Amino acid sequence: MKTFSTRVLKCGHSLYIYSMNSTLILITCTDKVGLVALITQLLARHNLNIIAMREFVDEGANRFFSRIESSGPGFDQQVLYDELKQALPEKAEISINPLTEKRIAVLVTKEYHCLADILVRDVFHTLGAKVCCVAGNYDALRSFTERFDIPFHFIDHSDKSKQEFEQELSEAVNAYQPDYVVLAKFMRILSSDFVSRYPNKIINIHHSFLPAFIGAGPYRQAFERGVKLIGATAHFVTNDLDEGPIIVQQTIPVNHTFGVSEMVIAGKEIEKSVLSKALQLVLQDRVFVAGNKTIIFE
Amino acid sequence: MKTFSTRVLKCGHSLYIYSMNSTLILITCTDKVGLVALITQLLARHNLNIIAMREFVDEGANRFFSRIESSGPGFDQQVLYDELKQALPEKAEISINPLTEKRIAVLVTKEYHCLADILVRDVFHTLGAKVCCVAGNYDALRSFTERFDIPFHFIDHSDKSKQEFEQELSEAVNAYQPDYVVLAKFMRILSSDFVSRYPNKIINIHHSFLPAFIGAGPYRQAFERGVKLIGATAHFVTNDLDEGPIIVQQTIPVNHTFGVSEMVIAGKEIEKSVLSKALQLVLQDRVFVAGNKTIIFE
Amino acid sequence: MKTFSTRVLKCGHSLYIYSMNSTLILITCTDKVGLVALITQLLARHNLNIIAMREFVDEGANRFFSRIESSGPGFDQQVLYDELKQALPEKAEISINPLTEKRIAVLVTKEYHCLADILVRDVFHTLGAKVCCVAGNYDALRSFTERFDIPFHFIDHSDKSKQEFEQELSEAVNAYQPDYVVLAKFMRILSSDFVSRYPNKIINIHHSFLPAFIGAGPYRQAFERGVKLIGATAHFVTNDLDEGPIIVQQTIPVNHTFGVSEMVIAGKEIEKSVLSKALQLVLQDRVFVAGNKTIIFE
Amino acid sequence: MKTFSTRVLKCGHSLYIYSMNSTLILITCTDKVGLVALITQLLARHNLNIIAMREFVDEGANRFFSRIESSGPGFDQQVLYDELKQALPEKAEISINPLTEKRIAVLVTKEYHCLADILVRDVFHTLGAKVCCVAGNYDALRSFTERFDIPFHFIDHSDKSKQEFEQELSEAVNAYQPDYVVLAKFMRILSSDFVSRYPNKIINIHHSFLPAFIGAGPYRQAFERGVKLIGATAHFVTNDLDEGPIIVQQTIPVNHTFGVSEMVIAGKEIEKSVLSKALQLVLQDRVFVAGNKTIIFE
Repeated sequence: MKTFSTRVLKCGHSLYIYSMNSTLILITCTDKVGLVALITQLLARHNLNIIAMREFVDEGANRFFSRIESSGPGFDQQVLYDELKQALPEKAEISINPLTEKRIAVLVTKEYHCLADILVRDVFHTLGAKVCCVAGNYDALRSFTERFDIPFHFIDHSDKSKQEFEQELSEAVNAYQPDYVVLAKFMRILSSDFVSRYPNKIINIHHSFLPAFIGAGPYRQAFERGVKLIGATAHFVTNDLDEGPIIVQQTIPVNHTFGVSEMVIAGKEIEKSVLSKALQLVLQDRVFVAGNKTIIFE
Repeated sequence: MKTFSTRVLKCGHSLYIYSMNSTLILITCTDKVGLVALITQLLARHNLNIIAMREFVDEGANRFFSRIESSGPGFDQQVLYDELKQALPEKAEISINPLTEKRIAVLVTKEYHCLADILVRDVFHTLGAKVCCVAGNYDALRSFTERFDIPFHFIDHSDKSKQEFEQELSEAVNAYQPDYVVLAKFMRILSSDFVSRYPNKIINIHHSFLPAFIGAGPYRQAFERGVKLIGATAHFVTNDLDEGPIIVQQTIPVNHTFGVSEMVIAGKEIEKSVLSKALQLVLQDRVFVAGNKTIIFE
Repeated sequence: MKTFSTRVLKCGHSLYIYSMNSTLILITCTDKVGLVALITQLLARHNLNIIAMREFVDEGANRFFSRIESSGPGFDQQVLYDELKQALPEKAEISINPLTEKRIAVLVTKEYHCLADILVRDVFHTLGAKVCCVAGNYDALRSFTERFDIPFHFIDHSDKSKQEFEQELSEAVNAYQPDYVVLAKFMRILSSDFVSRYPNKIINIHHSFLPAFIGAGPYRQAFERGVKLIGATAHFVTNDLDEGPIIVQQTIPVNHTFGVSEMVIAGKEIEKSVLSKALQLVLQDRVFVAGNKTIIFE
Repeated sequence: MKTFSTRVLKCGHSLYIYSMNSTLILITCTDKVGLVALITQLLARHNLNIIAMREFVDEGANRFFSRIESSGPGFDQQVLYDELKQALPEKAEISINPLTEKRIAVLVTKEYHCLADILVRDVFHTLGAKVCCVAGNYDALRSFTERFDIPFHFIDHSDKSKQEFEQELSEAVNAYQPDYVVLAKFMRILSSDFVSRYPNKIINIHHSFLPAFIGAGPYRQAFERGVKLIGATAHFVTNDLDEGPIIVQQTIPVNHTFGVSEMVIAGKEIEKSVLSKALQLVLQDRVFVAGNKTIIFE
């Protein structure tokens, strides 16, 4: 029997205050006719009233995705899970009440703006997660991090192989058992080996409107091309550099007076905003990964 | 037994191509526990598969609103209606397949920009409705309207009482039996009497970000106040001038170089865009009116 | 001695009403110390009062660009030109009062939305130019164009070589001596030969946020990549496909519910808006081309 | 003889790195013919080369405003000032090189989001000013402020008269001799008496798109009205509550799912962003106050 708790979910654009008896249910399975009716009937039998239900069918992949906010006087979570498992197509992924507070590890290099946004929200408990540690391949952000009483690990990359560096990084991070690893302007490319340890659990902020300006020096590339907008992209990290599923993208105007450094400065604001929005969506379990795309129930 | 037809729905941001056997269902009723399950079960019994379902509960008013896109091999529309009517709370409003092409009458004064946007979409069949007539209290837009083979009615307001003017306008418009009356920069205030003949069926574009700058000369007011954004608001017209349920609002930046006439010119672009978006939402049956607010399932 | 005239300049965001004696001066030259003082002194000597002056130095190219709106009781335009020519560095480009109404030729294929926006503004004299003709490689938009009393030329590409096609197109267009050629969703790639006949005079609307999704099928590419924004780019056409100087770019949000056709529909709105803005800037002589970039004095 | 220094100016959208010999000049005076020529000539005589010059004439008030970035090998600042004073119309306001780092005092109540943004930028020296103190009418933000080694003054309002409260506040703040007082969600209305001590030096963030929803509870007002956008306004504080000259405004979309608390949460992001942008503009001396409006040279 589950113990109910009050949960407050916060999103860039919305907030849900869950009462004592609210339940969040996430379902992914092969699509078939009548799934919504089937699921809602089952919930009704457990006296769960639907507050908000979102669903999407990826027709190419024939997959059904749903996120259901419901409330009810009390029910047996295990029984509901088992019934859903039996009723839904094989290999359905079902998650009931995943909203216990997540833990995140933040990787950084030298730039503070994304890290600061995360640490401030953490200290005021509006992040929707707990920052368990910050690790950097430079020591530059140690004192800032420690102002917030968060442990900082300096893992120098300069004196060791990529494999050694990542092994050390991995150990430092894993000690905290984070649910997500956030690359908050972490400027080292991670190996497939590292990435594969955290499938769909590493979130990166890329300083361009992907797929424009993939790779190094996107602001220089943007300057050379004479674009009139610059952007930022938050995405899950996969083995293909800069090719993982996109979560959030935004752009802001620039003009001929912007040199590379002006673009870098303007870009920081949009990077911060995009990563912040992406974290809120992910931490509220609003983001499903479907191949190299995301489905987001805002 | 309903005759199926292919329908194409268009929205600012999305398009749905309905296959032969698609069905749109709109429901508004008093809220109660289990409504979603109840409705989806009923649909399942008629072999209607849910493609997209949106619902919202206005907790203050205790009202439930839902818009359901479904598909199935064929069903008896009258039987489904009756079953829903019986199952749902008293005074439920149910609409099945309201999407036959609507007819709209457009009222204008002298400004062409909103009218032109509507007429161009009409001639290329992308409006989601048919413009049946244009009526103006000036004759200025007659020749433009007639380029599109749409009848234009000039109803001069200068030589008659408001009551006479509105009577004449009403007669001209009613002859076409429009589903909606669109005020495309129509600069006469309509009486309660006129408005009450078309409840939630008159859509106006107001040249400000309401409720700022209610009433006459909003751009002058905006200029005097030194605002850094101007906006436009599309809303349903009610007896309270500028107080009807808002459908769409947008703003654009202005600066100290803008005088009143520059604001007017910049404003036209946003007025056109806002009215266009509002019409698309309304004509696709995505907008529910709830008191002085709208619920919009985009 | 110049004959003064009243000119009204309109821009997306601003309007200038030139009084009888206003003068617009455009200058491009090698940069050197004291240019602004030198130019403004010269103007003062001709009793030209500066209303608005904008200048920019491209430091990489060591080029100075300036746009000056001034007014005065009357002056000898040729004398001013000669004095500026003598005072400024060699090969300075000077243009005094270039604002006589430009003529534009519009090339189209099958899509109406950009063409319609241009023709409507043309008929109400708010384009800042005169549309002299429309030419299409399909006949689809003839009747629409002719509603506006603009000649339409159908130049079929299917039965001839690219060279023959372009020769015919060129002849049709050149008969009207246009100042600019606008590609309003013209879906044929023009040869270097054709392009070089209109240096910095061909304006294209590209249906993506360049440089993302260069080439064919940008919306399909965007869909496959799972982007969360789509965009449009107006640019001058050069020999490098999709690589010419960018004038205006904008983006709008999309989400997982957008298939390719929904992106196409949403994209049309942004394409129309971006091309319209670009034309306004160019037609008001606010855009300077500097290498593969633009300098825009809004 | 002035001592040159390297200055880095940062703005939301642009950055200027001043070389050793750069000079910023601000001028406000009655308008007359030939001012730009007159000023630029004077600068040329001092070997000051104009990098960027912006000017605006408020025709209603017949006032000229100019901001000039220039560079040169060295000049006598006092002589230039005297020459400008003599050449320009009476009562001209002239400021040469006002860019020494400003000091700001921040007033808060309980909300952290605007304060945090300011303190983070302060600690990384990207604010363009130094935060000298934070004062609050609650003690809630003391520990957060002290993480950044900034003195926090708790001035309780509950046990004293408005006059006493403001006297105490004034004394605490004045001890630091701030150039600007920033109301970062300070929820007490300041008396005319207090305001008049800091003319055009108090910057407030108002949690609505002024002039909509003036006064208390703007988000509740916005919710009741059913608006589709909410906004924030940064403005200078004058004796008329919420009527001071506006510096920056932005809006973000909301919909029917937003209750008052969701609007409050979404609003915080826009409040933070708007205040941050306004501070950057003011601290770079880009903002001139003209009556109840601002002129901003971005």
